Amino acid sequence: MNDRLIKALTGQPVDCVPMWLMRQAGRYLPEYRAIRAKIDFNTLIKTPSLCCEVALQPLARFDLDAAIVFSDILTIPDAMGLGLYFTAGEGPCFERPIQNAADIAALGVPDMYTDLGYVSEAVATLVAALKGRIPVIGFSGSPWTLATYMVEGKSSRHFERIKSLLFNEPATLHRLLELLTESVKQYLQAQINAGAKVVMLFDSWGGVLDTDNYRSCSLAYMRDIVHDLKQSVLSQHVPIILFTKGGGGWLTDIADTNCHAIGVDWTVNLGTARQQIGHAAALQGNLDPVALYAKPATIKQLVKQMFESLGDKTGYVFNLGHGILPATPPEHVSVLVEAVKRYGQVTQTARETGHVKQQT
Amino acid sequence: MNDRLIKALTGQPVDCVPMWLMRQAGRYLPEYRAIRAKIDFNTLIKTPSLCCEVALQPLARFDLDAAIVFSDILTIPDAMGLGLYFTAGEGPCFERPIQNAADIAALGVPDMYTDLGYVSEAVATLVAALKGRIPVIGFSGSPWTLATYMVEGKSSRHFERIKSLLFNEPATLHRLLELLTESVKQYLQAQINAGAKVVMLFDSWGGVLDTDNYRSCSLAYMRDIVHDLKQSVLSQHVPIILFTKGGGGWLTDIADTNCHAIGVDWTVNLGTARQQIGHAAALQGNLDPVALYAKPATIKQLVKQMFESLGDKTGYVFNLGHGILPATPPEHVSVLVEAVKRYGQVTQTARETGHVKQQT
Repeated sequence: MNDRLIKALTGQPVDCVPMWLMRQAGRYLPEYRAIRAKIDFNTLIKTPSLCCEVALQPLARFDLDAAIVFSDILTIPDAMGLGLYFTAGEGPCFERPIQNAADIAALGVPDMYTDLGYVSEAVATLVAALKGRIPVIGFSGSPWTLATYMVEGKSSRHFERIKSLLFNEPATLHRLLELLTESVKQYLQAQINAGAKVVMLFDSWGGVLDTDNYRSCSLAYMRDIVHDLKQSVLSQHVPIILFTKGGGGWLTDIADTNCHAIGVDWTVNLGTARQQIGHAAALQGNLDPVALYAKPATIKQLVKQMFESLGDKTGYVFNLGHGILPATPPEHVSVLVEAVKRYGQVTQTARETGHVKQQT
Repeated sequence: MNDRLIKALTGQPVDCVPMWLMRQAGRYLPEYRAIRAKIDFNTLIKTPSLCCEVALQPLARFDLDAAIVFSDILTIPDAMGLGLYFTAGEGPCFERPIQNAADIAALGVPDMYTDLGYVSEAVATLVAALKGRIPVIGFSGSPWTLATYMVEGKSSRHFERIKSLLFNEPATLHRLLELLTESVKQYLQAQINAGAKVVMLFDSWGGVLDTDNYRSCSLAYMRDIVHDLKQSVLSQHVPIILFTKGGGGWLTDIADTNCHAIGVDWTVNLGTARQQIGHAAALQGNLDPVALYAKPATIKQLVKQMFESLGDKTGYVFNLGHGILPATPPEHVSVLVEAVKRYGQVTQTARETGHVKQQT
């Protein structure tokens, strides 16, 4: 198996910085759009063979170091009975959002085999299809991020409903977050059992909180999940990546959860991030997805600058700072991959001395 | 004149921390909605007597330490001929957004008396009405923020158009930013001439840039504006506040522009911010606007915590971390004002020793 990703996430030397791209399977690929022309998104994510097919699509085009299970961050609330659906303009929505404490009291942890079995099955199908060539990444939304959609009912601008709950009925909100945390633990464990070699928590909306509430409502629960995975024999060696969009101000707090790696968005300077956290955690990111609209020469230049800013390449995974955008030209992704493979090379000497040097 | 705001912005001791609220005149007030029921927003901002009337509305209810001219951040592009209009769902839009270099070449600096005279007149009318009771704040969008609306044509999610311009035709974008910078200088100067005692740059979208591009596309132009205002006899003593939403990672860079004060959004911890910048600049902010939906007891508690986190109150102006939301109950604003007046008191001893102590 190409183990660059695992090595980079655990701080071990690699011959070249590994890379994958958030939403690498998706609408920017014509072959993905061809499938979606026939099948709606909800059916797609609930059909493991199709999930496998679309997850493999980018790998046929680009030399990437990981596959990620094709799924959605909102499968858990859907399995709890909230009725997930998708609209063209507004993105994901719930038919039955959470209104009050009674709604929350009525919720339970979904069964990972009956209610959410389609996700582990998608992982297992993808793992089998890849025949050990590259690792499969499993993922979940963070408890806070899941809660925002469950309470708001859809994407939100000001998060007025969930923050009202936070400010006015904190105990109620924390009950919801605890339930989601238990669900996420089991969900990631199920994906690991199915063959995921890395897991990632997408905390898309942790960045809308003030520092104190970020710590207590988002990070504390992610910390609990990290701790839990590290306790189990089956998951303790599976690297876990925490990605809080807009979380650049809290990198040392995030590293302090004992996660293996921190995903960073494009507003973070990689060199500054490394200065802040040292090698307490690996870093993953963070080219602005819109940079893929640039000319090939500019894309190469931007990748070169990222590596210059980063310095020591140990404990680093190349990625975008957020999901790839639907209007991205696939040829530009090829340019990006070539640039990362070129500028991300690590010499034998650097491999032997780079990280150690940093630590002394 | 109540000079707490000026004193706080220039690091001088005050008896109580001054406060005002972004969008303190606005839709959360029934008396504002009564006017808007009869007059559309565009007519309102172009009628100085009405601007004055709505700017005074919150002052009749709350003991605030400043008034802010009632206007919009997009008056400059409108005066350049882009055709500003407002829609219920999408917010501000332009009829004729910038498409290419030729469009930019055709633009000129608006005339501050004929094209934008209504803004200075709104300032002058408000200044006259206040009879020197409290200072009037003038403002402008930052060059980068104005450029985003001009190129995107409206609010944007990913800023794909302007970032494409940035990555593919940087020289073209910088021509636009230079033109806007010259316009903003003259615009703020005109507001100061009309009686504004403080000015503020709203950099609503600087936070969507990566660090390097934030420095070169947003901060560099704000620095130029600060420098310019400090050169002129008429404006050199007028404190200038820079507010980059999402700019919490760049506070030392912002302080380095030599601005008087930095506006911070609610994701920033005030104590951490002060540690980072010391007293190189005053701080303004940063309660989460949604916190005003909380119960009175909670609002008081949150204000108390903010002051505890801040420590030394010198060089600090209380505000929200973003504009007040339309659904905010006005009674909750009264609770907030009382809490700030209570917890923001500065004892005689602290006034004499507080700041000095910090510096030694």
